[in-house]
Amino acid sequence: MDIKSIIGKKRENKEISKEEIEYFVKAYTEGEIPDYQAAALIMAICINGMTEQEILDLTVAMANSGNKVDLSEIDDIVVDKHSTGGVGDKVTIVLMPIIASLGIPVAKMSGRGLGFTGGTVDKLEAIPGYRTNVSVEEFVENVKNVGISLIGQTENIAPADKKIYALRDAINCTKSIPLIASSIMSKKIALGANKLVLDITVGNGAFMKTKQEAERLAKCMKLIGQKAGIETVCVLTNMEEPLGINVGNTLEIKEAIEALKNNMQEDLREVVYALGAQMIKLAGRGEDVNQNIAMMEETLQSGKAYQKFLELITNQDGDISFLHDTQKLGEAKYVIPVLSEKDGVVEQIDAELVGSISVYVGAGRVKKEDEIDMLAGIVLNKKRGQEVKTGEPLAYVHTNDESKVKGAVENLKQAFKITDKKVKKASTVLGIIK
Amino acid sequence: MDIKSIIGKKRENKEISKEEIEYFVKAYTEGEIPDYQAAALIMAICINGMTEQEILDLTVAMANSGNKVDLSEIDDIVVDKHSTGGVGDKVTIVLMPIIASLGIPVAKMSGRGLGFTGGTVDKLEAIPGYRTNVSVEEFVENVKNVGISLIGQTENIAPADKKIYALRDAINCTKSIPLIASSIMSKKIALGANKLVLDITVGNGAFMKTKQEAERLAKCMKLIGQKAGIETVCVLTNMEEPLGINVGNTLEIKEAIEALKNNMQEDLREVVYALGAQMIKLAGRGEDVNQNIAMMEETLQSGKAYQKFLELITNQDGDISFLHDTQKLGEAKYVIPVLSEKDGVVEQIDAELVGSISVYVGAGRVKKEDEIDMLAGIVLNKKRGQEVKTGEPLAYVHTNDESKVKGAVENLKQAFKITDKKVKKASTVLGIIK
Repeated sequence: MDIKSIIGKKRENKEISKEEIEYFVKAYTEGEIPDYQAAALIMAICINGMTEQEILDLTVAMANSGNKVDLSEIDDIVVDKHSTGGVGDKVTIVLMPIIASLGIPVAKMSGRGLGFTGGTVDKLEAIPGYRTNVSVEEFVENVKNVGISLIGQTENIAPADKKIYALRDAINCTKSIPLIASSIMSKKIALGANKLVLDITVGNGAFMKTKQEAERLAKCMKLIGQKAGIETVCVLTNMEEPLGINVGNTLEIKEAIEALKNNMQEDLREVVYALGAQMIKLAGRGEDVNQNIAMMEETLQSGKAYQKFLELITNQDGDISFLHDTQKLGEAKYVIPVLSEKDGVVEQIDAELVGSISVYVGAGRVKKEDEIDMLAGIVLNKKRGQEVKTGEPLAYVHTNDESKVKGAVENLKQAFKITDKKVKKASTVLGIIK
Repeated sequence: MDIKSIIGKKRENKEISKEEIEYFVKAYTEGEIPDYQAAALIMAICINGMTEQEILDLTVAMANSGNKVDLSEIDDIVVDKHSTGGVGDKVTIVLMPIIASLGIPVAKMSGRGLGFTGGTVDKLEAIPGYRTNVSVEEFVENVKNVGISLIGQTENIAPADKKIYALRDAINCTKSIPLIASSIMSKKIALGANKLVLDITVGNGAFMKTKQEAERLAKCMKLIGQKAGIETVCVLTNMEEPLGINVGNTLEIKEAIEALKNNMQEDLREVVYALGAQMIKLAGRGEDVNQNIAMMEETLQSGKAYQKFLELITNQDGDISFLHDTQKLGEAKYVIPVLSEKDGVVEQIDAELVGSISVYVGAGRVKKEDEIDMLAGIVLNKKRGQEVKTGEPLAYVHTNDESKVKGAVENLKQAFKITDKKVKKASTVLGIIK
């Protein structure tokens, strides 16, 4: 195998073979192919695309590059959930206890935040004591004991994907649909689930900016799922404005706890129900989507979902006194309102900008090594379609860094578009691709 | 400036600005941009191409990346000559003394061979004592004293081009026309000539495989020349079979000496005259191409051209007794004939294959660090259009490495295509683009 001839093929938009892809993935992961040759190949893929066969071969090669998790001890059917990322996205933390409270086993590994989207693991760590760094053995044991475990991704899962993703980031090739799809699906294959509900976020706060792109990505992932034996359903959800009202780690945990206490923002509820209904269906526990939603409503209202959440947290050494009284989780030193300068109706809240401001005030990472300020973030006081008066708060900046306050407030003002006209309600769920 | 956004622009096939190109060239040459980011940008350029403005900006930025040679002390008009490379191409060594013998100053820096094409500097070093490693000051002095100097490229000429070329080679991006054109022209600008005749070789023994490609490259280089103030004429020449009969360093020097003694192969003569006629014209020494050719014939027949060659070699410490008696230059240990297996006419001699075999037997480099066997190479006994009988030699393999003989002979046989039919003479000069 000769990497130069593989690069040349892709440069000329010819198909590369399974053997060539396997060679590239293995040799690059092992450091035999230097970054600059990998960068050239990735750029050629990014511009010229990949055939279905190439996408599948790349996904499987990356999935096979490290450890594989075996969940067969838990159940024949394990339903996983994944989101392509968004701003204020605390869906996993709300949805998974609901599902587990219905007796469906939940074994979910999540990632950390990077860039303007947050990560579930960072958010969970806002709960004092809660351990996200758990071995696979304990993970499986926890699911068997309390029906649910949420942890950070264990070591050496698809290391090829990790290395290729870091390179893609450095050379501005994160936006390729074949590469996004194979990256996500390689991890899902390695993590051992055999059913999967994908939340594909769409809009300015998501990687997919248009519904068309999201549909292309959905089809690509379904295709991989089909060939790799993972039954996959894609739910396209709106990420034009942040999901719910809180953005930032402790802030989102607070909102998630409120939601599990059945005090949930409307848009968050819609996404949770849409994804959950598909998960229940995939688990073989209900064919009718409306009945599945009714089941989720019942488990929320009865407190069973919240109860399951308490079990999850207790079981991994989290201190549930912080859940009963979320005030105890604390608040940033500076909580500064962003006031509306006119009367009107909120027409738009730029989700990407809100996400970037939350990173700016300390809630996220620009580089992997960056430290997070758990208390920092943004709280929205007005969402799309709501009326606002001059001088009324549109949102609040939460930060411990005084030097960031002024810039954050100024920028956050720009994120809101206020209109005189009526604003139509936007759909939260944009489509389901089964 | 942010290299990631520059990469992103080119990935999306948008034009990058002069400032962005200057930043990239400077920061990459200085090691501030890592190879993998440069590789991604180069691949995007290779696939998406460049606008005229981008090509010009890249060329000038690379020309400005190192030292610049000032030839104004020699003459107001200095005509340079460059070839895009071929197999058996000893044109510079024959042509330049002819031009100098007409009183036109010749100040030419050349490169070394890499891959299947040879380099003028390596060939000149086959003459014992001759120094190619000469300072710019001595170079200029030599031209003033004897009217001609042929040397190796001095240090730090367009170092950006050097670094980018090495990267292009490693990532299989050598075939991009904008990158070839800017690479050649950046060096020509730095080397200080203001008139240029370009020999653009076409065919399987050249980088440009078709006349169409060659024309595209010619137009691209003329455009750069125009904008950079270098009057450029492109001559397209046939490189379907090797030029002349000898391939290899000492072998080519021997053929060049014979040629300067007015004993020249027909195809070599046609190329030398076509390029020379344009050089004389650019030097303002003759508008009529036929008259220019007559001048060259005269200077060859009278021995003035050979006399000028002797002056050149003597002036740079070469031992001219080797020129008077070329037998003294020596011969490889093994000189093995390749015999025809049928009667017929030579229809084709695969120039790239001949070049590769000459590298295989020791005449060239695969990597820059490789040592050359000066005596190794190929001598053609039959050229295109010539009759051959079974058992008659088609060519001879010259090598000092016995282990290479068998493979070389076998492969060289494959390079010849023998036919029963008549073979039409192929044009040597395919076009002139003024």
